[in-house]
Amino acid sequence: MSHAQGLNVDTPIIPLSESKRFISECLQAVGTPKNHADEMGDLLVEADYRGHYSHGMNRLEMYINDVKSGTCDGKAVPKILKETAATAWVDGQNGLGAVIGNFCMDLAIKKAKEVGIGWVSAKGSNHFGIAGMYTLEAVKEGMLGMSFTNTSPFMAPTRGKQAMLGTNPLSLAAPGKEGDNFVLDMATTAVAVGKIEIAKRKGVPIPEGWAQDKEGHLTTDTANALARGSCLMPLGGSETNSGYKGYGLGFLVEIFCGILGGATYGPNVRKWGTTDRKADLGQCFVAINPNCFAPGFEGRLSDMMGMLRKSAPTDPSKSVLVAGEPEQQHMDAIDKAGGVRYLPNQMESCKRLSEELGVKPLKPLR
Amino acid sequence: MSHAQGLNVDTPIIPLSESKRFISECLQAVGTPKNHADEMGDLLVEADYRGHYSHGMNRLEMYINDVKSGTCDGKAVPKILKETAATAWVDGQNGLGAVIGNFCMDLAIKKAKEVGIGWVSAKGSNHFGIAGMYTLEAVKEGMLGMSFTNTSPFMAPTRGKQAMLGTNPLSLAAPGKEGDNFVLDMATTAVAVGKIEIAKRKGVPIPEGWAQDKEGHLTTDTANALARGSCLMPLGGSETNSGYKGYGLGFLVEIFCGILGGATYGPNVRKWGTTDRKADLGQCFVAINPNCFAPGFEGRLSDMMGMLRKSAPTDPSKSVLVAGEPEQQHMDAIDKAGGVRYLPNQMESCKRLSEELGVKPLKPLR
Repeated sequence: MSHAQGLNVDTPIIPLSESKRFISECLQAVGTPKNHADEMGDLLVEADYRGHYSHGMNRLEMYINDVKSGTCDGKAVPKILKETAATAWVDGQNGLGAVIGNFCMDLAIKKAKEVGIGWVSAKGSNHFGIAGMYTLEAVKEGMLGMSFTNTSPFMAPTRGKQAMLGTNPLSLAAPGKEGDNFVLDMATTAVAVGKIEIAKRKGVPIPEGWAQDKEGHLTTDTANALARGSCLMPLGGSETNSGYKGYGLGFLVEIFCGILGGATYGPNVRKWGTTDRKADLGQCFVAINPNCFAPGFEGRLSDMMGMLRKSAPTDPSKSVLVAGEPEQQHMDAIDKAGGVRYLPNQMESCKRLSEELGVKPLKPLR
Repeated sequence: MSHAQGLNVDTPIIPLSESKRFISECLQAVGTPKNHADEMGDLLVEADYRGHYSHGMNRLEMYINDVKSGTCDGKAVPKILKETAATAWVDGQNGLGAVIGNFCMDLAIKKAKEVGIGWVSAKGSNHFGIAGMYTLEAVKEGMLGMSFTNTSPFMAPTRGKQAMLGTNPLSLAAPGKEGDNFVLDMATTAVAVGKIEIAKRKGVPIPEGWAQDKEGHLTTDTANALARGSCLMPLGGSETNSGYKGYGLGFLVEIFCGILGGATYGPNVRKWGTTDRKADLGQCFVAINPNCFAPGFEGRLSDMMGMLRKSAPTDPSKSVLVAGEPEQQHMDAIDKAGGVRYLPNQMESCKRLSEELGVKPLKPLR
């Protein structure tokens, strides 16, 4: 996470609504229907708002290229292939990730309202942005949400030196009292590639357990960690530090996505940044209705979060946080500022897109 | 895991059926009905068989004491409090963990047969042994299974120095072809207490990231790691190594258990080894019917496991494994030997129990 970016950069403030307008119009300019383009705008801006800048405006150009080249079908509407009262198998038909994710999570919520739980697995999807986008939709309906996606291969299994699984993120969001929600949104690798890139830019070594070199050995050298053939390590890092658990969790995500959904899986998923073939990602969306279990879910969750926040910190200046809290702090800061500040090279990329696509440039707050 | 124990100890071989007989008769001797005592026998012996000796015969004395003291009700039958086609909320009524776990997983499987998924949360439970016991039940029916339990507080949240969550294990088991199954069964802490105890016995330091001392600082000293007020660290270890993800996963387990099920949660769960009050653990059991999703689940899972096993290893003498494989290797060795070899102090403890309870002693293979 790069929470500092939205506050410490000397670029103009862009209101969230303006970012959404810009993203949607860019995608419309390459032939995406307005409703689909709007869903992508909501998705990318939510990522920026939450401080996950790598998954926000930063990804716009990639999505535009996918639609322009026809690798992804901006017009495609997901289709239910098989259905029970509580489950569905969906073909994303190679549509935009946000369109498929929203469709599947809406379906899961509908089923959870009726029978307590909805479990939806999709094939034929594309990158769906931050996993937390969809689980927060469930929370808006008073439910617990889970989402999973497979991704391009980056992670070596414990004892291995080949990239066999992706960063395979998972999210769980759950409603506390008065909008104080639990929002876990994490890759099952120790870190994402972006964190290593930032260390490289700063010229500092990375901790042991983030990455391994192309021979499969632990490395703290950013050049080795980013060289061709290197791999991310699973959460936990080395085998001694139980990295096999992170590897197992990455596989769990793949089981719910590529294997259950019948999408491409594991090392067969296309390499990151390539567009020679369809992504055919697998994804999974779950909604759970807490009213079907013990009454008072929100109160208990808030109580538990409160106990954690009030528990004794190791360093008195750093209190214990719960999942979703760093993001909430970032959102509060963005609200106060009236918008997001993008990095200078991001602003330039937006300017270029605006010229290429004939879209009105981003208009700063003042 | 202490897979070597069952092979390298100089004690007589005990057939699995004999261990089951012994466990069941001991529990019956303190007033447990035979059917419940048999379920506990199956559970503990499965743990030994899979090489998880800490959760097998090793726990018998604890369960006997729980039943004898009335802290746990050996006769209690679980009760469904609320139900939909896909979900159930169960009161374990303070019964034995295996009895509640089997009841809930059977219920989840029944629902998954009908509507594709069954999600069951329970309160009022006791230690349920290895989480994989229940998920393997789902696999026997051709389904995916998940199980979760909260446990006594042991883990400090990232940035904290108080034990606020347990080792909170989770399991996912899924059927591959011809009985080649994926079985993930892991604590969400970096390691269990037992691993630190083994290092202490060996007189070797522990790696950074397993435990923190009572001040909340990383420690590699086993005495500090086991001292009063020390804590286990979440999977990942320190904040730098993304320990907050392991902390988030431990909280995820608590959400599905204590919070969803309305059981005791977090730091309120009774301390390990205490019996002054009921455990009132929360647990969660899920069955997913792969036939409700893309056809050919088992083939894809086996294909993925095969690719992983054949992927390039870092050390050519150690091939890449998949979750459940170390256990399978252990089971094969036990089958070949005709039974388990228990540690000498375990054999003594069984002898003492046999005398105290008037139960026929363990009879070795020959």
